[in-house]
Amino acid sequence: MVDLILKKKQGGELTRDEVNFIVEGYTTGAIPDYQMSALLMAIYFKGMKKEETANLTLALVSSGEQVNLSDIKGIKVDKHSTGGVGDKVSLIVIPLVASVGIPVVKMSGRGLSHTGGTIDKLEAIEGFKTNLSRDEIIYNVNTYRMAITGQSANLTPADKKMYALRDVTATVDSIPLIAASVMSKKIASGADAIVLDVKVGSGAFMKSLTEARELAQTMVDIGKSLNRKTVAIITDMSQPLGNEVGNANEVKEALKVLQGRGTDDLTKIALTISSYMAVLGGAYKDFHKAYKELEKKIYSGIVMDKFRELVEIQGGNSEVVNNPDKLPQAKYIVEVKASQEGYVTSINAEAIGVSVMLLGAGRKQKGDLIDYSAGLTLVKKIGDKVKTGDTICLLHTNLEDNKESENLAKNAYTICDTEPKPINYIHEVIV
Amino acid sequence: MVDLILKKKQGGELTRDEVNFIVEGYTTGAIPDYQMSALLMAIYFKGMKKEETANLTLALVSSGEQVNLSDIKGIKVDKHSTGGVGDKVSLIVIPLVASVGIPVVKMSGRGLSHTGGTIDKLEAIEGFKTNLSRDEIIYNVNTYRMAITGQSANLTPADKKMYALRDVTATVDSIPLIAASVMSKKIASGADAIVLDVKVGSGAFMKSLTEARELAQTMVDIGKSLNRKTVAIITDMSQPLGNEVGNANEVKEALKVLQGRGTDDLTKIALTISSYMAVLGGAYKDFHKAYKELEKKIYSGIVMDKFRELVEIQGGNSEVVNNPDKLPQAKYIVEVKASQEGYVTSINAEAIGVSVMLLGAGRKQKGDLIDYSAGLTLVKKIGDKVKTGDTICLLHTNLEDNKESENLAKNAYTICDTEPKPINYIHEVIV
Repeated sequence: MVDLILKKKQGGELTRDEVNFIVEGYTTGAIPDYQMSALLMAIYFKGMKKEETANLTLALVSSGEQVNLSDIKGIKVDKHSTGGVGDKVSLIVIPLVASVGIPVVKMSGRGLSHTGGTIDKLEAIEGFKTNLSRDEIIYNVNTYRMAITGQSANLTPADKKMYALRDVTATVDSIPLIAASVMSKKIASGADAIVLDVKVGSGAFMKSLTEARELAQTMVDIGKSLNRKTVAIITDMSQPLGNEVGNANEVKEALKVLQGRGTDDLTKIALTISSYMAVLGGAYKDFHKAYKELEKKIYSGIVMDKFRELVEIQGGNSEVVNNPDKLPQAKYIVEVKASQEGYVTSINAEAIGVSVMLLGAGRKQKGDLIDYSAGLTLVKKIGDKVKTGDTICLLHTNLEDNKESENLAKNAYTICDTEPKPINYIHEVIV
Repeated sequence: MVDLILKKKQGGELTRDEVNFIVEGYTTGAIPDYQMSALLMAIYFKGMKKEETANLTLALVSSGEQVNLSDIKGIKVDKHSTGGVGDKVSLIVIPLVASVGIPVVKMSGRGLSHTGGTIDKLEAIEGFKTNLSRDEIIYNVNTYRMAITGQSANLTPADKKMYALRDVTATVDSIPLIAASVMSKKIASGADAIVLDVKVGSGAFMKSLTEARELAQTMVDIGKSLNRKTVAIITDMSQPLGNEVGNANEVKEALKVLQGRGTDDLTKIALTISSYMAVLGGAYKDFHKAYKELEKKIYSGIVMDKFRELVEIQGGNSEVVNNPDKLPQAKYIVEVKASQEGYVTSINAEAIGVSVMLLGAGRKQKGDLIDYSAGLTLVKKIGDKVKTGDTICLLHTNLEDNKESENLAKNAYTICDTEPKPINYIHEVIV
């Protein structure tokens, strides 16, 4: 192992056997944490080549179980988002892509973040079951083309162990390590094709387009090396996505998009991701054709029906689809007001996220309970003109004291005299 | 700690408090190995600033006991060598510097290398005692101006723990970490002034002059920051130093130098180091004056008497001084011969070192016994002309089978048609 650390430190490329030796040794405990962390830091500085990163991904996949979805007909398409605030894209994508006959198996972890993850959000719907067995997944997908479930199998344990170490040794932000981690989970979950939503901006892990592009390209390269059709879409996270943040709030907003009444940013991003998934799944030959057809499906009401079906087959109360007020409602709505006049020029998405977490929408620690009704509505977004005293956002809360959340939300907004440039929602697509 | 690793990873400078927090935490075990090794790798890539390295040195000193030599009158001068093959300079320096009245307290570890360390070499002399108590050291130095002893106190435990970790995480070769390690041991041993012999060349840890200069400058900077007069001399290690390698062999060669019959390289290097020690100790104002005076002392026989005195006061059999054949003698002498004609253009010092270690002169593992009589005599050195069949070196051995040592020694020599350029023994002095 010392020789391998030295090799990487000097910028060398680890062979497949060497990568396997490292990952296996680390998983079994034969290679101690202190050697692994030195190697990870050397990888941070020296990077990894394409083949090396693909080999790391495979080694992470091989470290645990792999979900066998071969009983599902068709090309199984999965999506992954690198994470942001107000990201409810999966809620829209699942019924939308399934509505054109492509099998969507979405495996999702619980969120340890500002809001819950996708399965936490769906659990805001009364009765919605997110722990499907393998047989249930296969039956649902073969019958209805869709399933969403938490991870039950022991997928990529080496990645879990490595991530825990990276977290305490300041080696999280290495592009090849992030890329191998994401791709290994998708591949172990049985995906044949993968669409990656790489978020960029103040509210995302990747702050610059250069970094986002590098991560996107690295993941697409891994996909190619391992024979998984992969597309990465770099989308904007310079402010929270859509107008709603919080679990029930985000379900409500997803329903609006499915009715064709969603915000421009969220609708365009969800349609773009879904269209690439539909193309990779073989429903359409061409992205633009797919986009137009999916848009039509939304306006036809079919996708709304598909979402209702998803709720029903997973045991949830589908009344919420026609009557979103049946979702958990917070006791109080607090108006946060502008203290000056001008244009909203930026909204710190991380601050909004923390504000919502403090209201109870997310988990600070594993095992924390979530208040599904807690959330925040962005009444104003970047580019909007405001007058002093205008409501810029609303807090949905059951707490009596919301001062900290209110201050965070208020200070997250920057209001200036000059009108900002319009924002691109989709920055780049890497195929 | 994660924040401090991150800071260093991004090229930041750790404050004194941060360095203390790290070293204390690591010594007590509050900071785990895996975080320390990530930090060490980040230091390898990002380096440390002058003040930071000085603070690290002080923190290492503070991690353990410090030898209190305040009862010794005068400026206590110590020397340190970064290590090479055939390095018996300390054996010459101790009596030479003591002979002009400067107190020399030499604390030395046991060697874990091709030959033993300085105290192992002296133990080739029957009865020579190298575990002096603090009172003995102080009495001997106040009376005779010299003492050499193994380390008994718990000096710089943080350095020991860090070194063990660096050894298994490929982070040994970081200039600030090496510099802080060396200087912390010298300072904890109670030195007021330090002369550093930084070896450069194929047989040294520093292979290039650029690296050696950086290490030398870093150690001199630490000395200055911590108010220790420090001089670093960069000396040649492109071949073994002098003609003899091995424990008894090196004592014999040191005796030759003390009689004015030593090889040019060894004599010049020992005199240069001693002269700087004498200047730092206040015996002379000027290096050149010191050099001339010390040279005279050698030819006067005074230094030989001083060495005899050293042997006597430390309990050794001083008959060896007049009769070096009383030192342990090996049963066999094996002649290694040139297989071609030409000039010796290089001698791989590391290969010579391994050859001698295999004869029993050094330790592969801690606790291994040393054969004091085992060694190697370099009959030919770089620049010498040889004919086919000429003896190039001699093995001194008690073993029947010396094939591997013989091959190593033979192949260590490169013989070419072209006469090589003469070698500089002293490359640079950094004050």
